[in-house]
Amino acid sequence: MTLTLSALNAASLPDFVAALGAVFEHAPWVAEGAAGARPFATVEALFCAMRATVETADDARRLALLTGHPELAGRAARAGTIAPDSIAEQAAAGLDRLSENEVARFEALNAAYREKFGIPFIACVKRHGRAALLATFEARLASSPEIERQTAETEVMRIAAIRLNALVSGEGPLRTTGRISTHVLDTVRGRPAAGVALELFEIVSPTEAALVARAVTNADGRTDAPLIGGRPVPIAAYELRFGLGDHFRRLGLDLPEPPFLDIVPIRFGVADPEGHYHVPLVATPWSYQTYRGS
Amino acid sequence: MTLTLSALNAASLPDFVAALGAVFEHAPWVAEGAAGARPFATVEALFCAMRATVETADDARRLALLTGHPELAGRAARAGTIAPDSIAEQAAAGLDRLSENEVARFEALNAAYREKFGIPFIACVKRHGRAALLATFEARLASSPEIERQTAETEVMRIAAIRLNALVSGEGPLRTTGRISTHVLDTVRGRPAAGVALELFEIVSPTEAALVARAVTNADGRTDAPLIGGRPVPIAAYELRFGLGDHFRRLGLDLPEPPFLDIVPIRFGVADPEGHYHVPLVATPWSYQTYRGS
Amino acid sequence: MTLTLSALNAASLPDFVAALGAVFEHAPWVAEGAAGARPFATVEALFCAMRATVETADDARRLALLTGHPELAGRAARAGTIAPDSIAEQAAAGLDRLSENEVARFEALNAAYREKFGIPFIACVKRHGRAALLATFEARLASSPEIERQTAETEVMRIAAIRLNALVSGEGPLRTTGRISTHVLDTVRGRPAAGVALELFEIVSPTEAALVARAVTNADGRTDAPLIGGRPVPIAAYELRFGLGDHFRRLGLDLPEPPFLDIVPIRFGVADPEGHYHVPLVATPWSYQTYRGS
Amino acid sequence: MTLTLSALNAASLPDFVAALGAVFEHAPWVAEGAAGARPFATVEALFCAMRATVETADDARRLALLTGHPELAGRAARAGTIAPDSIAEQAAAGLDRLSENEVARFEALNAAYREKFGIPFIACVKRHGRAALLATFEARLASSPEIERQTAETEVMRIAAIRLNALVSGEGPLRTTGRISTHVLDTVRGRPAAGVALELFEIVSPTEAALVARAVTNADGRTDAPLIGGRPVPIAAYELRFGLGDHFRRLGLDLPEPPFLDIVPIRFGVADPEGHYHVPLVATPWSYQTYRGS
Repeated sequence: MTLTLSALNAASLPDFVAALGAVFEHAPWVAEGAAGARPFATVEALFCAMRATVETADDARRLALLTGHPELAGRAARAGTIAPDSIAEQAAAGLDRLSENEVARFEALNAAYREKFGIPFIACVKRHGRAALLATFEARLASSPEIERQTAETEVMRIAAIRLNALVSGEGPLRTTGRISTHVLDTVRGRPAAGVALELFEIVSPTEAALVARAVTNADGRTDAPLIGGRPVPIAAYELRFGLGDHFRRLGLDLPEPPFLDIVPIRFGVADPEGHYHVPLVATPWSYQTYRGS
Repeated sequence: MTLTLSALNAASLPDFVAALGAVFEHAPWVAEGAAGARPFATVEALFCAMRATVETADDARRLALLTGHPELAGRAARAGTIAPDSIAEQAAAGLDRLSENEVARFEALNAAYREKFGIPFIACVKRHGRAALLATFEARLASSPEIERQTAETEVMRIAAIRLNALVSGEGPLRTTGRISTHVLDTVRGRPAAGVALELFEIVSPTEAALVARAVTNADGRTDAPLIGGRPVPIAAYELRFGLGDHFRRLGLDLPEPPFLDIVPIRFGVADPEGHYHVPLVATPWSYQTYRGS
Repeated sequence: MTLTLSALNAASLPDFVAALGAVFEHAPWVAEGAAGARPFATVEALFCAMRATVETADDARRLALLTGHPELAGRAARAGTIAPDSIAEQAAAGLDRLSENEVARFEALNAAYREKFGIPFIACVKRHGRAALLATFEARLASSPEIERQTAETEVMRIAAIRLNALVSGEGPLRTTGRISTHVLDTVRGRPAAGVALELFEIVSPTEAALVARAVTNADGRTDAPLIGGRPVPIAAYELRFGLGDHFRRLGLDLPEPPFLDIVPIRFGVADPEGHYHVPLVATPWSYQTYRGS
Repeated sequence: MTLTLSALNAASLPDFVAALGAVFEHAPWVAEGAAGARPFATVEALFCAMRATVETADDARRLALLTGHPELAGRAARAGTIAPDSIAEQAAAGLDRLSENEVARFEALNAAYREKFGIPFIACVKRHGRAALLATFEARLASSPEIERQTAETEVMRIAAIRLNALVSGEGPLRTTGRISTHVLDTVRGRPAAGVALELFEIVSPTEAALVARAVTNADGRTDAPLIGGRPVPIAAYELRFGLGDHFRRLGLDLPEPPFLDIVPIRFGVADPEGHYHVPLVATPWSYQTYRGS
């Protein structure tokens, strides 16, 4: 259930803080500090006021904002004793379904990180696939305390932006979503390829691919909805698999058995979770092309 | 060790039959029958004479030629009690390394086939990947006795042609080999992409891929030797995987992490074992194309 | 100035006929006949009623509808003594700017056609480039009287549909417009190519190309408006010319002089004036691709 | 008629100089100076000895080598009073067929160049199309005397290398030739496109294209010989035109009239006369791609 910006502009201070107090984890003072700058014309302006509250707070409060965050896949998370938003976010990233080995790895990394930097490792999990999350964890462990303080705060802002967007509707929403889309063109007939079944997988490891979406192209050769949309696209390698052979078989083309092209895999990486990844397939039974489109 | 055609033309009848008697399994009479048509100008002419000997033989002999063949992956094959050429051919196709389930499946098919048609199932295994061999086995089981007699004899001829080519060197060798080749073009720089690591896999099942070849592109963007060559290309689905991301990283291009294109898989089917499958990759860090070339 | 459908529904009969009497050339009886079927929910329904009026008229009237049409590029057209809509349509097709030779050719064809079929040659000129108009003229001259009567009436309907759409605004407009659009993708950088100058030419003859549109791509690599839109795309061969070399020069790429690709021409034919011809250019300094997109 | 390297190695000094004296214009002393270094194992070694003779000559002789060259399209050239090799070279570049305007332009440039640098403008005309020759002429006129001395000598070496290659056969010929080739792939059928008519034009000016070669693709989709080969490819813009529409019509495909693709033009620039420009066309009736191949 989202609140409108105008309702928030008109709300009492306690109601305002009650509504937005959880945007920054265990830190309702951020909402409180921003309330005075009302009214806000856009969601973005509201967010800027909250960020300014953080950035002008004293060092102890800023540090507490970081130490208040739960560890990723940590004991508290698994025990369900962390903030509800964090539970949902970690679950969406699959961090509640780790293998024993992965749990052990996260625990070791968490301990090493806290030992080195004195704060928990904070990352906006919605912006990372599981493999990318581990890779960034290891990379950041090698960083310096100054840079990590900044990086942690950047991640806190990203988490807050997504939470705020989910809570408040209004003009000028924050840019927290990306998209994966596709388009299948049949260049034997010079027309969109309708009825092509396709699947999108996240490549979790060299031997494991997790199904993310399944769709069939419509009359324009596109899918009715983006394959990922309305949320950040997790940083990861993906593979699209198109049932191209079936498409040309249905058209009655004379194909060898097995056909030269049957299931066509396209593997691509996403590095910008707020970007639009348009990955078309321009194909005949004997050739195809793909590119990052727009 | 191969024999020259001229040596065979000059050989005594017993020597000729000793040399070529195993080309048709358990049927030295085929070589004997062809000997009278010497001298042969080409290997192809020699093969035609052998085929004519079979085709003019009486029905009992022609049938015996079929019944003399060992079953695929059958008990005799596993016990090593079949002709040496057949042992090697079945081993090359991986039929000596089947799982329990696969052995059981072959045995059931062998039994059903022999029951229905009165002859063993004969297929030129060098022309089939393992999945294709099982698929063709099941398809042929649904065929009619007349067509299966013809198909079996066609397969016997294919087996014989490969054996003869391996034994005899001379003008006009039989066309028993195909090829898989590739070529990597870098269209950022308009040049062949040198130093690109690539692997060719045979897709054995939806979850299993067997490595067939590994190579690195040379200065012309090609591999020094075909990925498969000098033999039939087994009917199968294949996947080429190119280390494209590493190529562009080495050139110092500014790529995101993960890059849009890193490992590029191209999956294609081979239906014509004697064909040339040229599968080029024309690529940038953000696009690629492939097609069946020549 | 367009009329609304609701105003027409409410108009007196004389006003209705005054408004729509010129939709069918010299035949206000068509509007008159359709008026009784009011009110019309859509422009398409209004057009259907007009067509029905024609199709249920007696043969003499239907024939008069054809003979009432002016000749293409004929003496009356050049003298300006034909209906104003016809003058504008013929001028838009360039028929008022023909060379002496072309005028002579049209006159000879007009005479031969009238001699053979007893009616003037009627074609919806907005749907034809000049070369296509002459080609269809010659092809139809070889046709039979029965087929030409039908074809002429079909063309009358096409002319009327375009006139009606221009006159009346409302729900369900007739489909009388097509489109040419483009999209330039730079696959060196994986982004739309902004700022690319391009020109669209109609190929009038092997030695003559007439400039139709000139544009520069926007931030999304597209043009702000279709290159042709809001009207039928004349049947013709076209050539798009893209200033690709300048694009890559501006980006500072190290290109030879002359560059491998500088002005990139794409030549394509339009056979369906109401179709959408999307003709993208996917390019690097060393490669490009185009296809009929959607 | 070419001489063998071994014959030259064995020749008397007068015969050697008679054979090679014209390689450097009006400078038999270059051949004479190189003769002492015999025997030569390769043509390249012979050329290196001739170049060394030039480079170790005193300044007066080196300057005389330059002043001895005729002007391009100059009065002497048009009167036929220059060295036979120069006549043939200038004619091959079309400099004997210039318009009045072009002659005037060359004369003005020649005069300005000689005035500024004290030597005639020297360029290896076989390496330039007419437009490129004028462009380089103008660019070099803006250069400095030191650089122009060097550039002129480089051009003298290029002219000499081509003359030497034409005179002498033997191991290690000089690299003085480039190539334009093509390959047409039909990706509707996954095969080379045979029987496709194509033409190569040199773009001489925005309104003039000169036919260079005409060919039809063979069974492998290539032309039997390179479109340009055995000589430098003149620096210029070129246009290949492929009769793609006719190809698909012959195959009986159901195409609109006019077809989406009929004559396909590919325009490309050559900057490296000794390079290999492989320009393939990978096409369907609705799409095509080209790239600089290898």
